[in-house]
Amino acid sequence: MRSPAPSQEEIRRQNLGALLRFVHERGRISRAELTTELGLNRSTIGALTAELAEAGLVTEEAPRETGRAGRPSLTVRACSDSIFVYAASIEVDLVRVARVGLGGVILDRVSFPRPVDVVGALTSAVQSFTVDSADRRIGLGVAIVGVVRREDGMVRLGPHIGMRDEPLGDQLQERLPQLQISVANVADVCALSEHTRGVAIGCDNVIYLYGDVGVGAGIIAGGHRVTGHGGYGGEVGHMVVNPSGTRCECGSRGCWDTEIGEQTLLRLAESKPDTSGQEAILAVIDRAARGDHVAQAAVRHVGDWLGFGVANLVNIFNPELVIFGGTLRDVYLASAAQVRSRLNSMGLPATREHVRLRTPTLGDDAALLGAAELAFEPLLRDPLG
Amino acid sequence: MRSPAPSQEEIRRQNLGALLRFVHERGRISRAELTTELGLNRSTIGALTAELAEAGLVTEEAPRETGRAGRPSLTVRACSDSIFVYAASIEVDLVRVARVGLGGVILDRVSFPRPVDVVGALTSAVQSFTVDSADRRIGLGVAIVGVVRREDGMVRLGPHIGMRDEPLGDQLQERLPQLQISVANVADVCALSEHTRGVAIGCDNVIYLYGDVGVGAGIIAGGHRVTGHGGYGGEVGHMVVNPSGTRCECGSRGCWDTEIGEQTLLRLAESKPDTSGQEAILAVIDRAARGDHVAQAAVRHVGDWLGFGVANLVNIFNPELVIFGGTLRDVYLASAAQVRSRLNSMGLPATREHVRLRTPTLGDDAALLGAAELAFEPLLRDPLG
Repeated sequence: MRSPAPSQEEIRRQNLGALLRFVHERGRISRAELTTELGLNRSTIGALTAELAEAGLVTEEAPRETGRAGRPSLTVRACSDSIFVYAASIEVDLVRVARVGLGGVILDRVSFPRPVDVVGALTSAVQSFTVDSADRRIGLGVAIVGVVRREDGMVRLGPHIGMRDEPLGDQLQERLPQLQISVANVADVCALSEHTRGVAIGCDNVIYLYGDVGVGAGIIAGGHRVTGHGGYGGEVGHMVVNPSGTRCECGSRGCWDTEIGEQTLLRLAESKPDTSGQEAILAVIDRAARGDHVAQAAVRHVGDWLGFGVANLVNIFNPELVIFGGTLRDVYLASAAQVRSRLNSMGLPATREHVRLRTPTLGDDAALLGAAELAFEPLLRDPLG
Repeated sequence: MRSPAPSQEEIRRQNLGALLRFVHERGRISRAELTTELGLNRSTIGALTAELAEAGLVTEEAPRETGRAGRPSLTVRACSDSIFVYAASIEVDLVRVARVGLGGVILDRVSFPRPVDVVGALTSAVQSFTVDSADRRIGLGVAIVGVVRREDGMVRLGPHIGMRDEPLGDQLQERLPQLQISVANVADVCALSEHTRGVAIGCDNVIYLYGDVGVGAGIIAGGHRVTGHGGYGGEVGHMVVNPSGTRCECGSRGCWDTEIGEQTLLRLAESKPDTSGQEAILAVIDRAARGDHVAQAAVRHVGDWLGFGVANLVNIFNPELVIFGGTLRDVYLASAAQVRSRLNSMGLPATREHVRLRTPTLGDDAALLGAAELAFEPLLRDPLG
């Protein structure tokens, strides 16, 4: 909680970072708006902008005709085409890879079914994008459905993608030595991207629930990411909600994962054996919508336990926003009544009264955009470093 | 997550605050150490110290003879006697009130059984302390066993002290108009004080569990307090751990409160009806230590559920430290094996591997010292404001 005293040089870097972050997050903005938003005077904004322009990070343009009297303020925008990061999302069924320009613009993208050799395929995808030698590549951010060590991107546990103590960060670094590599859990980066440019803009207390085979959370509290001592925070799927429930593959019993996970929904809905993934879930929800009682009961059951866990998290975090992403998006939409009912009965009035339940606005791009944010972070912290 | 760009004036204030906070938290410190710790040059440290001394916040002294060659660095210490706050802790059985000097020195204190008119008694206690008219009173910080609105100190829920929607902050402000009033949950402020000057110094990811009739948590994640949107975060006592458990007074069933709360332990231990409080808990623990099988089973049961909830929180927060305070201190010490066993079986290896389980080092003063930190906060943020 201690704020170290900044030196003059640090202040300049902070200011450059604050300005660049603003342009990166908000898009095209006038110098006048920057002056207001950052609380710096016009000449300081002019000097900082000039430095960033000199470094090729932003450009300044005359604005469109405003019709007002007086000299219009120059507008500043990020050089999205020439300053970019690579971003990847390693999901249960799919790997997505993109080139994302400063400002959060997806410039190129590919996706393919998750191969056995993820590192090789991801490296090839990164190298397949055509870039200009003058362009500046900041790094590679990777989102993954696993428990990731912050320090070095080691995937400690990723049962649904067959990983355990897999040194993913180091392996990627070896193949792509010129890029700074960051790896994080997919729920963490989705929380980050929705907070930066999605449904959670301006919300300081947010829980993003990402469902695939199981469930994980990306948490923002007081405006700060909650990632824990080693980076393993947010493993809400292994919060035990039902001590007399079924055995979880983690060794525990009645984990939230086992009550709301994909396989539970499919089993209760009597889906065909060996079906899985988002399409199978959507098929159950579709059956429920068309009046299939078995599917309806399955959706209600899962929705009830979904609300149960949400209520626990709301009592713990008192968030203003809970976002249902990944496969939980559709599960939530089909069972919102159960979720809200559980939340109302189990959440304390004080902790739940202002909480909004929402779905993501960035859709399938949330993980890529969040992974890109990870990779942009060193640049935004110190643009000329 | 956006860091606003600081102006020159803000930087000066930040530096003054950083220096004063250092002296407040670390005690007597030399100018040379401040230079190193704050990363500012000697002349800046000299100027900042002079400003704080001028304002009567710190004094400088020649150090004791060091025996080394060269001019020894002046030492700086807080003016604890003349710059102080009032701090209070409203507990189930007791009210404690103190005058706490800058640097965290308890100058005077009183305590009394919790009266019906808490506001009146607290006001009288504050006014009873002898102070010099030249002294500077910063504010009043209050810790309370209840769910508190951050904005205005409204106690939304405090069933064990008979409060519901009690405007405690406003009532105190009316009686003590010259003081800035801050009210917060006792677990939150205990986490703060143990982090500032107790067992959690230097730990950025901490869960402080405070037990009395029920249990609440003060949480620090990534070095920041997790208090939620309205200030109601940390209500871990109403995390449901046992859906088939007993009815909680919150209306839910199987809350952590109902499984590890005081009344559960006393009932299972077949304590005399109408006993309660820390002495009754200690009596059960004492019976268990002396071989009473009923008491032993009660302690094991509560310890098992204590570990259950701790494991959930460890999976969610990946903390480096869990602190057992209030009556949970003794319950934990008597059932550490059960707690650790549950944590090992339910916590993911990654989330639990580095977690230490500890008792507080500030003892009964933790709440008072934490309440004092709340009251000092405006001064430390802007010492000359």
